[in-house]
Amino acid sequence: MANSAFLNKLDSACRANRSLLCVGLDPDLGRVAVADIVEFNLAIIEATSDIVCAYKPNLAFFEALGLDGFLALEATLKAIPPNILTIGDGKRGDIGSTSAAYAKALFNVWGFDAATVSPYLGHDSVEPFLAHKDKGVFLLCRTSNPGGRDFQDLTLLDGNPLFEHVANLAGEWNVAGNAGLVVGATRPEELGRVRELCPDMPILIPGIGAQGGDLEASVRLGATADGRRAIINASRSVLYASSDPKDFADAARQAALELREGINQVLESEGKGWS
Amino acid sequence: MANSAFLNKLDSACRANRSLLCVGLDPDLGRVAVADIVEFNLAIIEATSDIVCAYKPNLAFFEALGLDGFLALEATLKAIPPNILTIGDGKRGDIGSTSAAYAKALFNVWGFDAATVSPYLGHDSVEPFLAHKDKGVFLLCRTSNPGGRDFQDLTLLDGNPLFEHVANLAGEWNVAGNAGLVVGATRPEELGRVRELCPDMPILIPGIGAQGGDLEASVRLGATADGRRAIINASRSVLYASSDPKDFADAARQAALELREGINQVLESEGKGWS
Repeated sequence: MANSAFLNKLDSACRANRSLLCVGLDPDLGRVAVADIVEFNLAIIEATSDIVCAYKPNLAFFEALGLDGFLALEATLKAIPPNILTIGDGKRGDIGSTSAAYAKALFNVWGFDAATVSPYLGHDSVEPFLAHKDKGVFLLCRTSNPGGRDFQDLTLLDGNPLFEHVANLAGEWNVAGNAGLVVGATRPEELGRVRELCPDMPILIPGIGAQGGDLEASVRLGATADGRRAIINASRSVLYASSDPKDFADAARQAALELREGINQVLESEGKGWS
Repeated sequence: MANSAFLNKLDSACRANRSLLCVGLDPDLGRVAVADIVEFNLAIIEATSDIVCAYKPNLAFFEALGLDGFLALEATLKAIPPNILTIGDGKRGDIGSTSAAYAKALFNVWGFDAATVSPYLGHDSVEPFLAHKDKGVFLLCRTSNPGGRDFQDLTLLDGNPLFEHVANLAGEWNVAGNAGLVVGATRPEELGRVRELCPDMPILIPGIGAQGGDLEASVRLGATADGRRAIINASRSVLYASSDPKDFADAARQAALELREGINQVLESEGKGWS
């Protein structure tokens, strides 16, 4: 399968910054070091855009601000350099005609390069996203939170857990090479299993940092055989590395540098560095 | 369990308008009879607000319009009479801290009385919505679309389908009496089963009209023993009953009147009318 425009952009951004690190933009008004969300996001982006392969704005934190949040998201997206991948993290998913409207919102109105999508409504809810063949679609598979076990780990009649069924169907649905999966860094065993099932697909791996995920295992088990396409996301541990308005951006840069270095050490130890 | 403020509002709205009908507001720019979405929605609301128990704005169709959509949703919500239930249909759901931000957006920023929530991430993703005890939380259980079978119908080791597990957990999680479920009108058998499992919970039942759901079976199998708490949603069949700018509102009223009458005939035939 030829690489989709989405995969090309992802692979190029990773190579250019020698990085599998994604920074999640979850601007929580109660925690940001400066009063203005846009000022905060722009400072974070300026401090980290040479270190990351992607930014992942979390739509909830913008929606919680009403109209101001909408305008803040617009200004934030404008500030992201065009060579860096943008992932709209909204976990949308609905019947076909509604998913088509969500895909339009995320890909055409906002202009995201990729989006996270919930699989619970099945194929016709995912297809309108995948139909944007130049865009990436990360299906929730095994999430990083405690409640991930409530449904995703349930064993089906064939003896396999539900999340593996999601991974298998994502593989089937991936006719344009633009599908990906979300598997939490807190679940290394499941991550390794999903990578076995989908050897080439990009996997978005949240849960490093505040959620306590295992960085070393995430890189080792989440990457492809040649050490790529594991997108390691950190949000709060970078954004809130310091609450001091004078140095939060420097602290974020330092935290991001350490994460990139940690990731690259694992890759190098396996002979899969960026050379 | 005492009724939650959400259930009281739902029950009052149903009684006042002698109606289990909800009109879904899915303003599709390609289909609305007039060029302005707000003008369209306000005309639909004016024409139907004495016939329905609830309106269900579908967030996707507003988000697909960018900033204009945001302002249109604001104006639409202002026009809904305060005694009618508003359901924010966004099918959100994420890890706890993010779900808390979505709940804030839906319940505090927008002021919806209820919201639809995807269960795939489990308890800690649903709890921040349920923590708004005066608001309703409709968990997706068995959806109306063809892809509903891809995951929701999968048989678990205990021999029961996944959607029944969702219904059972919704019952467990419903400590404040503000949980509900979504079951499609296209799946009468599953609807009946869910009603058995959750005898008192409100069930939002989309899929009447354009999706071909069975009205009679939905009312008979979806309502509680006393003929209540089945919220029968129709969207496109009401909104687009006529594409003529001169009579679309009259046509929508006529379509809504016929649906309410059809629902009430079923209730009366079972001795559960409004008298």
